[in-house]
Amino acid sequence: MTTNPIRATVPFDEDGKHHGFLRLPHSRNESAWGAIMIPITVIRNGAGPTALLTGANHGDEYEGPVALQSLAQDIAPEQITGRVIIVPYMNYPAFRAGTRVSPIDNVNLNRAFPGAPDGTATQKIANYFNDVLVPMADVVLDFHSGGRTLDFLPFACAHYLDSAVQQEACIAAVRAFAAPYTLMLREIDSVGMYDTAVEAQGKVFVTTELGGGGTATARSARIALRGARNVLIHARILAAAPEPADSVMLDMPSDDCYHFATSEGLVEPLVDLGEEVAKGDPIARVWPADRTGLDPLVYTAQRSGLLAARHFPGLIQTGDCLAVIATAMATRTDGHPA
Amino acid sequence: MTTNPIRATVPFDEDGKHHGFLRLPHSRNESAWGAIMIPITVIRNGAGPTALLTGANHGDEYEGPVALQSLAQDIAPEQITGRVIIVPYMNYPAFRAGTRVSPIDNVNLNRAFPGAPDGTATQKIANYFNDVLVPMADVVLDFHSGGRTLDFLPFACAHYLDSAVQQEACIAAVRAFAAPYTLMLREIDSVGMYDTAVEAQGKVFVTTELGGGGTATARSARIALRGARNVLIHARILAAAPEPADSVMLDMPSDDCYHFATSEGLVEPLVDLGEEVAKGDPIARVWPADRTGLDPLVYTAQRSGLLAARHFPGLIQTGDCLAVIATAMATRTDGHPA
Amino acid sequence: MTTNPIRATVPFDEDGKHHGFLRLPHSRNESAWGAIMIPITVIRNGAGPTALLTGANHGDEYEGPVALQSLAQDIAPEQITGRVIIVPYMNYPAFRAGTRVSPIDNVNLNRAFPGAPDGTATQKIANYFNDVLVPMADVVLDFHSGGRTLDFLPFACAHYLDSAVQQEACIAAVRAFAAPYTLMLREIDSVGMYDTAVEAQGKVFVTTELGGGGTATARSARIALRGARNVLIHARILAAAPEPADSVMLDMPSDDCYHFATSEGLVEPLVDLGEEVAKGDPIARVWPADRTGLDPLVYTAQRSGLLAARHFPGLIQTGDCLAVIATAMATRTDGHPA
Amino acid sequence: MTTNPIRATVPFDEDGKHHGFLRLPHSRNESAWGAIMIPITVIRNGAGPTALLTGANHGDEYEGPVALQSLAQDIAPEQITGRVIIVPYMNYPAFRAGTRVSPIDNVNLNRAFPGAPDGTATQKIANYFNDVLVPMADVVLDFHSGGRTLDFLPFACAHYLDSAVQQEACIAAVRAFAAPYTLMLREIDSVGMYDTAVEAQGKVFVTTELGGGGTATARSARIALRGARNVLIHARILAAAPEPADSVMLDMPSDDCYHFATSEGLVEPLVDLGEEVAKGDPIARVWPADRTGLDPLVYTAQRSGLLAARHFPGLIQTGDCLAVIATAMATRTDGHPA
Amino acid sequence: MTTNPIRATVPFDEDGKHHGFLRLPHSRNESAWGAIMIPITVIRNGAGPTALLTGANHGDEYEGPVALQSLAQDIAPEQITGRVIIVPYMNYPAFRAGTRVSPIDNVNLNRAFPGAPDGTATQKIANYFNDVLVPMADVVLDFHSGGRTLDFLPFACAHYLDSAVQQEACIAAVRAFAAPYTLMLREIDSVGMYDTAVEAQGKVFVTTELGGGGTATARSARIALRGARNVLIHARILAAAPEPADSVMLDMPSDDCYHFATSEGLVEPLVDLGEEVAKGDPIARVWPADRTGLDPLVYTAQRSGLLAARHFPGLIQTGDCLAVIATAMATRTDGHPA
Amino acid sequence: MTTNPIRATVPFDEDGKHHGFLRLPHSRNESAWGAIMIPITVIRNGAGPTALLTGANHGDEYEGPVALQSLAQDIAPEQITGRVIIVPYMNYPAFRAGTRVSPIDNVNLNRAFPGAPDGTATQKIANYFNDVLVPMADVVLDFHSGGRTLDFLPFACAHYLDSAVQQEACIAAVRAFAAPYTLMLREIDSVGMYDTAVEAQGKVFVTTELGGGGTATARSARIALRGARNVLIHARILAAAPEPADSVMLDMPSDDCYHFATSEGLVEPLVDLGEEVAKGDPIARVWPADRTGLDPLVYTAQRSGLLAARHFPGLIQTGDCLAVIATAMATRTDGHPA
Repeated sequence: MTTNPIRATVPFDEDGKHHGFLRLPHSRNESAWGAIMIPITVIRNGAGPTALLTGANHGDEYEGPVALQSLAQDIAPEQITGRVIIVPYMNYPAFRAGTRVSPIDNVNLNRAFPGAPDGTATQKIANYFNDVLVPMADVVLDFHSGGRTLDFLPFACAHYLDSAVQQEACIAAVRAFAAPYTLMLREIDSVGMYDTAVEAQGKVFVTTELGGGGTATARSARIALRGARNVLIHARILAAAPEPADSVMLDMPSDDCYHFATSEGLVEPLVDLGEEVAKGDPIARVWPADRTGLDPLVYTAQRSGLLAARHFPGLIQTGDCLAVIATAMATRTDGHPA
Repeated sequence: MTTNPIRATVPFDEDGKHHGFLRLPHSRNESAWGAIMIPITVIRNGAGPTALLTGANHGDEYEGPVALQSLAQDIAPEQITGRVIIVPYMNYPAFRAGTRVSPIDNVNLNRAFPGAPDGTATQKIANYFNDVLVPMADVVLDFHSGGRTLDFLPFACAHYLDSAVQQEACIAAVRAFAAPYTLMLREIDSVGMYDTAVEAQGKVFVTTELGGGGTATARSARIALRGARNVLIHARILAAAPEPADSVMLDMPSDDCYHFATSEGLVEPLVDLGEEVAKGDPIARVWPADRTGLDPLVYTAQRSGLLAARHFPGLIQTGDCLAVIATAMATRTDGHPA
Repeated sequence: MTTNPIRATVPFDEDGKHHGFLRLPHSRNESAWGAIMIPITVIRNGAGPTALLTGANHGDEYEGPVALQSLAQDIAPEQITGRVIIVPYMNYPAFRAGTRVSPIDNVNLNRAFPGAPDGTATQKIANYFNDVLVPMADVVLDFHSGGRTLDFLPFACAHYLDSAVQQEACIAAVRAFAAPYTLMLREIDSVGMYDTAVEAQGKVFVTTELGGGGTATARSARIALRGARNVLIHARILAAAPEPADSVMLDMPSDDCYHFATSEGLVEPLVDLGEEVAKGDPIARVWPADRTGLDPLVYTAQRSGLLAARHFPGLIQTGDCLAVIATAMATRTDGHPA
Repeated sequence: MTTNPIRATVPFDEDGKHHGFLRLPHSRNESAWGAIMIPITVIRNGAGPTALLTGANHGDEYEGPVALQSLAQDIAPEQITGRVIIVPYMNYPAFRAGTRVSPIDNVNLNRAFPGAPDGTATQKIANYFNDVLVPMADVVLDFHSGGRTLDFLPFACAHYLDSAVQQEACIAAVRAFAAPYTLMLREIDSVGMYDTAVEAQGKVFVTTELGGGGTATARSARIALRGARNVLIHARILAAAPEPADSVMLDMPSDDCYHFATSEGLVEPLVDLGEEVAKGDPIARVWPADRTGLDPLVYTAQRSGLLAARHFPGLIQTGDCLAVIATAMATRTDGHPA
Repeated sequence: MTTNPIRATVPFDEDGKHHGFLRLPHSRNESAWGAIMIPITVIRNGAGPTALLTGANHGDEYEGPVALQSLAQDIAPEQITGRVIIVPYMNYPAFRAGTRVSPIDNVNLNRAFPGAPDGTATQKIANYFNDVLVPMADVVLDFHSGGRTLDFLPFACAHYLDSAVQQEACIAAVRAFAAPYTLMLREIDSVGMYDTAVEAQGKVFVTTELGGGGTATARSARIALRGARNVLIHARILAAAPEPADSVMLDMPSDDCYHFATSEGLVEPLVDLGEEVAKGDPIARVWPADRTGLDPLVYTAQRSGLLAARHFPGLIQTGDCLAVIATAMATRTDGHPA
Repeated sequence: MTTNPIRATVPFDEDGKHHGFLRLPHSRNESAWGAIMIPITVIRNGAGPTALLTGANHGDEYEGPVALQSLAQDIAPEQITGRVIIVPYMNYPAFRAGTRVSPIDNVNLNRAFPGAPDGTATQKIANYFNDVLVPMADVVLDFHSGGRTLDFLPFACAHYLDSAVQQEACIAAVRAFAAPYTLMLREIDSVGMYDTAVEAQGKVFVTTELGGGGTATARSARIALRGARNVLIHARILAAAPEPADSVMLDMPSDDCYHFATSEGLVEPLVDLGEEVAKGDPIARVWPADRTGLDPLVYTAQRSGLLAARHFPGLIQTGDCLAVIATAMATRTDGHPA
């Protein structure tokens, strides 16, 4: 069997804080004996649980990278019990290119799991996380945002799982994160996701969507940092006082939450993120991109609720997700979804 | 002397509403006898002033296109006196590509004036506006936003001009626009700008920055539409009740308003648009994009004020504008800058 | 086992005519939650046989798309018994790009069968046809032409098959098509072809080569439409009078029908499609593309016959197919190949 | 004043036949001290008139290159009186790329005259022809076809000129060419054309459109070769018997000959080249490229006549020339246009 | 099971010398029925051993191609006993593009073994060598150099193998090659290498690194030609006198021979190939590529020895191999590594 | 008149050492308010002469950048009298891309002088040097090498000038540089060169070619650094002992020094840099890149001399400079060319 060619330049089992790289040899036209160097920080202090924190699973999502760079600088070994593994730029080639998928192989890392040790560059990265890093972890936090083409209300999220015990543990960690919104999801198409790969190993898993458009704001970056610290505290790794916050529970109970474009054109949004809409309300109009004088196509809400996500770029293609309407539940500080 | 090859498929001097194109022959590998077809709407009702309204001078700015498509549909000839010329997608090839500059010649339309009838495609477009459309107009409104790489507080703007009369007329029109913020600007590098070309012809000129990031929101689109209607009403072309709104006066009195990146990296914003900062406050940190374990570069406010503009993408290059801090003046409904 | 992610937005089992899409989710840099939307029309009227009609298996071949758009508009449910499934742009991304293979994954759809539900975009399309649409069908008609790089005499074609019964059924359908030329083929390299995948499921299969060069003519488009109608009538799905036509039987009995370029250069054709040549006749000359003063390389006919196909672009590369010479058999209205 | 940097490696004033290059130094990333080497043949035999024969002014047009390579090999110095200068691949970089315009600077050579000695590569080529080669010539024949995106009935063409004497001389040469069709043109937009540059120097000028689609056929190549020989004989340079042929006179009396696409889509041609149409007849339909179920846009003939040119690719863009209808005049062997 | 589609146009079992191609059908946008034509020469004279000689396994390495073109011309069948198979441009598409990996599929041929008959183009080439050509051979010589991004001291190389007999046979052949330097290697990451595939079939295998930078010199080309002849003589295929030469034995005993860049920048080499360094000596400095005024990063030798390889381009990326230091052993004419 | 938009972030007239940038605003798709930041160091100590030292005029030449980064760090203000202006990466966008010409506008900086303040990015850089920096200087040293496509013997060079006084001053400075070879050149095509622009302002000018291939070696970097220091000492700016060295005088007396490729193919060099050749000696062979079995084209020396420059890449195109043979004169320590 082929071995994954990635090697870490830092130790995982030594106390202290070590900054280094996951080194993936990558022979290419521009460098015959080159490598993809994925930054990593390992902070360890004796025995205890391990948290694996990741950003830039998609290369154009920035809250995770920003929060994890801060954490990697700020956490001192003596503040923790156990181990924190931080990979702020998980799909490093995509992160450097500012793109969702890797410019090397055009692969979406979050659909490449469990990966392959002899696959393309992205498949090797997936495989290394799947086979090496995730098995080390007790709790895994993977930061997402909408990237350059989607924008989200800031939420943290847990999945409906077969194991009630695991699901409860995940929900507890998501609640600890304390994002402004909290969501329970049942993924329809979970094939190849990091989420699924992590959960299948029985780990506590937290994911997020904290904004989008290919940027981070001061507000969204603060949410990310606070959430990561809260999860580490919740996992009894970081000794500190948690920073709680109210969170609105969201639900996406059925397929009609998702609104797709049925033609291409120029988007005129009629509702902004977080605003309430009633079923049948117009939520956006799409104008022809090539002429004046024609009526726009009007999209109406398929259900009542809160605008939770939207297409970001000014132009849209047929088939693109235009908007997602979620059902907001009463704000509860305990945040339980049922 | 060479004649500009652009021909309009609509009449400029017939009453009624006409939708058509500015047809620019464009022989290329993909179409030997092809053309660039720039959508245009001309609405006319008897003698009276002419307004020229333009969007997508930069192809990745969407408030103008959205508002102008609405106006082109909504305004009936009988509602107006005079003429409204609407070109929602001024640099049409850039608009279709979703890029700031034209994919054909890589030229920034807003630095191409007065253009050339035998130049590149973008220079021909500039020249047609300069020589044909602007001379027809009394008032010119050109919509801008930050595009994919900048984000702005929504403001309308007039320039300091040599002619006090013309300047007053412009300020009056900008005030009529009623954006949430209003700005007076003295352009340092005005060479090649549409603004300069229009003002040099003695026209009343209004421009804006209404947001950015390569998207429009419901809010910014409404500001754009309201502003355009208000300007048409102010110009006594559109017979309707104006929709006034409070506006905060902004000033950018000196070069230290502009904050530039001095190294590349990952941006962590510490202040959001519209928030107040004091001189010396940290406004952003830039982390290395290639490793962990190094301190970020901290950028501090060079002056006190309001964050009026910011770099949008998550990554930044040396020399990019990171932030602009403006001085907010007292909110006045009359909005006069002095 | 992974399920194919493509979903049809139209019902296959409801009477009437439904226009919609095969929706293939496609997350990419330009749209995180985007989709490839392949147009489809399903026309059904009670129980009866099903015909599956496809065009643009290669994206630069146009007779099929044109004929199938016409059919999708023209056929009323009440004219048929059973079902007609029309996919005019089978490899939709390639069709929109005007290229033979998909711009997404560079895959040739007609060498991608049986495909894979978790493969690249083109492999997913192949898999959906293989597993979902072809099983629904009794007769399958797949339109081909030469595309941008080849030109063919217009012919319909059946393959030599192991099952004499199936082969006879295919020949009968091909004869019904009534193209100007009719061909029997034994594919040498049939691995991955749609043809092979369809025939392996025991279906009646008709394919064509109706011209080429990346265009359709009025004549070739009429041949395509007439042929498709004739096949539907032959299959007892469409109730109408067939439109018969004479057809010349062609045979390509051996490898020496194919003439390949052995050097690169500028092609001077000496014989046009449909013209007779004798063995040893010069059929083309290839001139150096970089200088004058050298003799051209002269290609002679390896056998006597009819020029049935030729390289289309003015320049040729070593290894390209320069010409195909077929043996014309006596014109027979019954068209039987033996 | 800057001197044109192109140098010929062959003598223009020595008797005999010389094959060589026009050498244009071209420093670029791929070759710091490289050059564009444009093939040229000069055949000379004593005093007498000079003919300048050119192909591939647009790089995707092949009848000229093929005929001129033949001529360069076939004409012996002793067969001529005077001089024949042959440049089969005028825009050599475009010819090698198989594209209309140069891949180096994206410039259309036939809109670059009189060029500039210190301009881009294509402008330097234009300038060398304008300042060096054309002044040497008495008669100039420049071959064109439709290229990859247009297809034409095969015609030779003269322009209406201010000088009646020059015009008559041109018409006589065009008649001598003996293409299947003959056309008189008044160019509307003649700025930058080689035609205009040559005519302005008082030369006898013949141009053609002999087919298109980015290919040559045996038939169109034979028309080109016959025409070039006939012109050389007519100019009393080549001593041989002319090969006369009937020619149909065509006229394009007004702008309504040209039919432009007003939307993008899939082209269904209803009339082929050379076929007659009456005013109002449908000549093409354009189907949506993104869906089924919508009616096509039908284009009808704006005037009666003969289909003389058509858009070639299967897809069309708004603004592309869809078709040209010419008026056919009675076939006359003397071919005079009035 | 799928059969490899490559067919040779030359016979392998006929006496004499045959020049031709390995023909790999390759349908693509630019040629629907095109092919990749890999040049090959087969020279045979009766029964006897077979040598397989290959160059351009990586497309930017030139000593092999140059030497093998010479050999293919120079060796007469009567000079040999047995058979010589010469493929000077093994990864032909990469060779034509001047790139390390194939421009078609971006695959590194030397990591693609054993390949796949239904894989990408490069995988098909690998598979053909693995399944067809290597089994014919007794001795295999594969030429490498550093390519555009590395530069090496000129050496020939054998691997440590499990079979002592096979290893001895390889060492003898490498010694026969008589490069200026001779190296024994234990490949760490041998997965997918041609070397490994050949050795696994029990063949005698010789490989080289003869220089680099994407060029060949007169000296390195002479080393390559002499070495190939010596190996053929050693294998008792070519009847001629060997041309012996002194060779320095090199060893790379441990991982600390390899020096990798830990940041990007401008390389200032301090030691040239073949020069001696002591542990701790500075071997290169890397300066910031974006500013002046910062100290360079100094790289020091991790061990004493000889500079055997170095990064070639002036700029370097994090993770690139900067230098390799080998241990030189006493020059011995018998060259035995132990 | 337009003003050049470049602004220096460092003072030119303050004593001390200042590191900063030449800031060229550059609005583009990736950064609406971005800039090209060209690193610069200014070292000043009182009144005295000014030296302007530049590297990376062509972006793929590395001796200059390396030497100038060293100088910018090493020279202390107190070591000099007057001023040293160092711009190690003159065409900064090209330097970062590792290409000869700028990736922004494809312009060769060394053919763009005197430039234009409102031209393309490269033209603006040229203009700033021409109008601002060169006028400040007394002596100008511009480093060149062969870049990725040429390789040179290391030489410094002066031009034959109209002013005998200026020429003598340049020769003296070139002699002071003390490169292994010294050359006098009369530029044939000097239009647009930096050299010409500097000399036209009456400055003492030294240029070099110190190697090539897109790399620097330890040896060539040392030559560059020594030469720059020697020139500064010679100019009485730097107070230090010069480091003299022998230099071979080279002459290129006529056009037959230059050998150009007349066909494309694979280069087999037969002579290396610095080796002697006699007229008629074979210097290189060019093999077909697409087949075996054809004889190579042999290039012979057009004159006797020393191989002074050669084509670097393994493949060559028609028109490329293959080799330059210079005449070596007796080694003289005084180095005077006559």
